[in-house]
Amino acid sequence: MSQSGKFIVIEGIEGAGKSSAIAVIERTFAQFNIDYIKTREPGGTPLAESLRSLVKSPDLEETLTPECELFLMYASRSQLIHNVIKPALTLGQWVIGDRHDLSSRAYQGGGRQMDDSVLESLANITLKGFKPDLTLYLDIDPKIGLQRAANRGELDRIEQEKIDFFYRVRDKYLSFANRDESILVIDAGQPMQDVHAQIEHRLRSYLQENR
Amino acid sequence: MSQSGKFIVIEGIEGAGKSSAIAVIERTFAQFNIDYIKTREPGGTPLAESLRSLVKSPDLEETLTPECELFLMYASRSQLIHNVIKPALTLGQWVIGDRHDLSSRAYQGGGRQMDDSVLESLANITLKGFKPDLTLYLDIDPKIGLQRAANRGELDRIEQEKIDFFYRVRDKYLSFANRDESILVIDAGQPMQDVHAQIEHRLRSYLQENR
Repeated sequence: MSQSGKFIVIEGIEGAGKSSAIAVIERTFAQFNIDYIKTREPGGTPLAESLRSLVKSPDLEETLTPECELFLMYASRSQLIHNVIKPALTLGQWVIGDRHDLSSRAYQGGGRQMDDSVLESLANITLKGFKPDLTLYLDIDPKIGLQRAANRGELDRIEQEKIDFFYRVRDKYLSFANRDESILVIDAGQPMQDVHAQIEHRLRSYLQENR
Repeated sequence: MSQSGKFIVIEGIEGAGKSSAIAVIERTFAQFNIDYIKTREPGGTPLAESLRSLVKSPDLEETLTPECELFLMYASRSQLIHNVIKPALTLGQWVIGDRHDLSSRAYQGGGRQMDDSVLESLANITLKGFKPDLTLYLDIDPKIGLQRAANRGELDRIEQEKIDFFYRVRDKYLSFANRDESILVIDAGQPMQDVHAQIEHRLRSYLQENR
């Protein structure tokens, strides 16, 4: 009864297919009778959702400094971990996270080229060792991902960055995946049904070992 | 013409008399024909004012983590420095700041007892060596200051902290003043006209040397 839940995170650039991947995870959790909640970052608490609106607004009245953007991401994350994720895990619920710390490493560290040491200090201050049990990173060529995102409608402030930005984001995602075995790389450039089959297969293996 | 303005900051706990001190500075600036703007922290830009409302709200729906509070303070500061303070100084305007980085050192470092190393890393990331030319710290016994603030009406979320919190804040203010000669300590426990005379005297000496 007091067994702790697990924190499963989906990562990837715009248009990689995070939403439909989350639907696959939910379906699989249902088959395993796993009690879970979903969160997203930035956001997931009332305060963090206010910060999300500020940081993603495509028509801010002022220049957002890279440092401000970074602090707002970690401010949001701190609220979400403390007020939502940890309490759920303690109750034995599993948590599906649409993005987490790895997004900051990839977008602010890779995309905006902020120093790794800066990212590392904010992560240490905020996470204090807390990390996802499993991360599924949906890897896709930014040219294809952004085309998909553009087809969905207006792009937000971050999605309006130039293509090079997203290639740097992808490189950073891959470099973290290379040295952390809790991050699984899913080839999200395949046909959608193959991507979903791959996600379900990886998740079932994980559940069979960790349930 | 291209001479840069100076950044003058007022610091102190609730009820120390920051607002009337700022009025004294403005009067003195007028006598010296100094072109200036006023800012406040947290706040001072549209985005930073939104963050101020969030962080000072006395009826937040959720617990604000100390880390989130700290990140929001530095997010606000980064916007203000980049979008308001530095552009004004470059134009030759002087800037009067109602609080600045020293407040975070005192409130989050002293009051909330966060590690000095945490404060130091956020300050380095945000300020990159930028600092006020002169800080006037209004020193007052928290018992007296808080009584004055309470007489003014409802206390905000931070002002509702216990008295020990404010003694730690004061200790931290004094310890920074001790080792930085750009921070002048004003005894704000004297009768108001003596406090104002002291501020005007210190400011006139500064202006005679730096104008």
